[in-house]
Amino acid sequence: MNKTVTHSVPARGPADHEVRDQIVAAATEHFSRYGYEKTTVSDLAKAIGFSKAYIYKFFESKQAIGEMICANCLRQIEAEVRAAVDEADRPPEKLRRMFKAIVAASLRLFFQDRKLYEIAASAATGRWQAALAYEERIRKLLQDILQEGRQTGDFERKTPLDETVMAIYLVMRPYLNPLLLQHSFDYTDEAPAQLSGLVLRSLSP
Amino acid sequence: MNKTVTHSVPARGPADHEVRDQIVAAATEHFSRYGYEKTTVSDLAKAIGFSKAYIYKFFESKQAIGEMICANCLRQIEAEVRAAVDEADRPPEKLRRMFKAIVAASLRLFFQDRKLYEIAASAATGRWQAALAYEERIRKLLQDILQEGRQTGDFERKTPLDETVMAIYLVMRPYLNPLLLQHSFDYTDEAPAQLSGLVLRSLSP
Repeated sequence: MNKTVTHSVPARGPADHEVRDQIVAAATEHFSRYGYEKTTVSDLAKAIGFSKAYIYKFFESKQAIGEMICANCLRQIEAEVRAAVDEADRPPEKLRRMFKAIVAASLRLFFQDRKLYEIAASAATGRWQAALAYEERIRKLLQDILQEGRQTGDFERKTPLDETVMAIYLVMRPYLNPLLLQHSFDYTDEAPAQLSGLVLRSLSP
Repeated sequence: MNKTVTHSVPARGPADHEVRDQIVAAATEHFSRYGYEKTTVSDLAKAIGFSKAYIYKFFESKQAIGEMICANCLRQIEAEVRAAVDEADRPPEKLRRMFKAIVAASLRLFFQDRKLYEIAASAATGRWQAALAYEERIRKLLQDILQEGRQTGDFERKTPLDETVMAIYLVMRPYLNPLLLQHSFDYTDEAPAQLSGLVLRSLSP
């Protein structure tokens, strides 16, 4: 009888994903105070109170931890953008809100904390998987809105869809990508309205 | 009689503008080899073979020399863009050529020589007068093409002209501004055609 209990409730430490989350949370805090580029895995281990070897059991490099932080950050931007888009009924208004939310969420997450910006910049410069996947999901969201607008008759259907998606993505890119966004602060107030106005004129049937 | 001759042909050195041009030419060469940021006016004086005091008679600072080099560089880009625009007859084609020429000329002048890029980047970051004036002239060229297209009936007239100019300028900006352009190399092949396509759809009457 005792044997059965021992088997079904084995003495165990936290699950792997819990440790990973713990490391990521501590690293996020540490990087946002001391910067990503300058911090080594040793510094991080010391700050968290883990051994370096223990951290390497869960992440193969500092970049792997940075990628996880970056992925979380981009997921949060994406969630805000999707929420803004979902609030609107018609495709033109969805597109307007998408522009507005991308600028607002990116500014807040990349620049409210200059140290986290560093991670986003490394992601964009180094073409990290998390950044590429995010760009792809944003393009997909854009494509969905365009397709819906073609079905409702709000948008023209002559231009190949791929071409429209790519061109509008290029218009949004300076506000999505932190490396570009840092040089666009002068325009972030007016750009969403002006660019979505231009894009909507280009889509009129 | 002799007196008159002495007066009309006084013994003189080179005119001020000649010395200025000579300093700018030598500085362009020097900066493009050794970089703008790292070079001091003393380094420059030594390299040219002038005294530092003599250079300061013509330019109040290193930035004043950099501004002159930058202005020359931007004038050259502008001349290429204007030449490309002038080759086309109709406003839509002018706009297409403007996009194409801006990307091509900016890439060539800012990036064929990474060291001169540094000056352009300082100009953009520091909002040098030469960079601001260039942006203003590009906006004016854009406005002239749009106005012409409104007159010929090629472009719509409902949207306020100012708004159209500003929105299209924002679309071009990532390819005009060297700080943005350096992060857009992946798109410089396709962007001119895709963005001018989108812009022309937005302008259709």
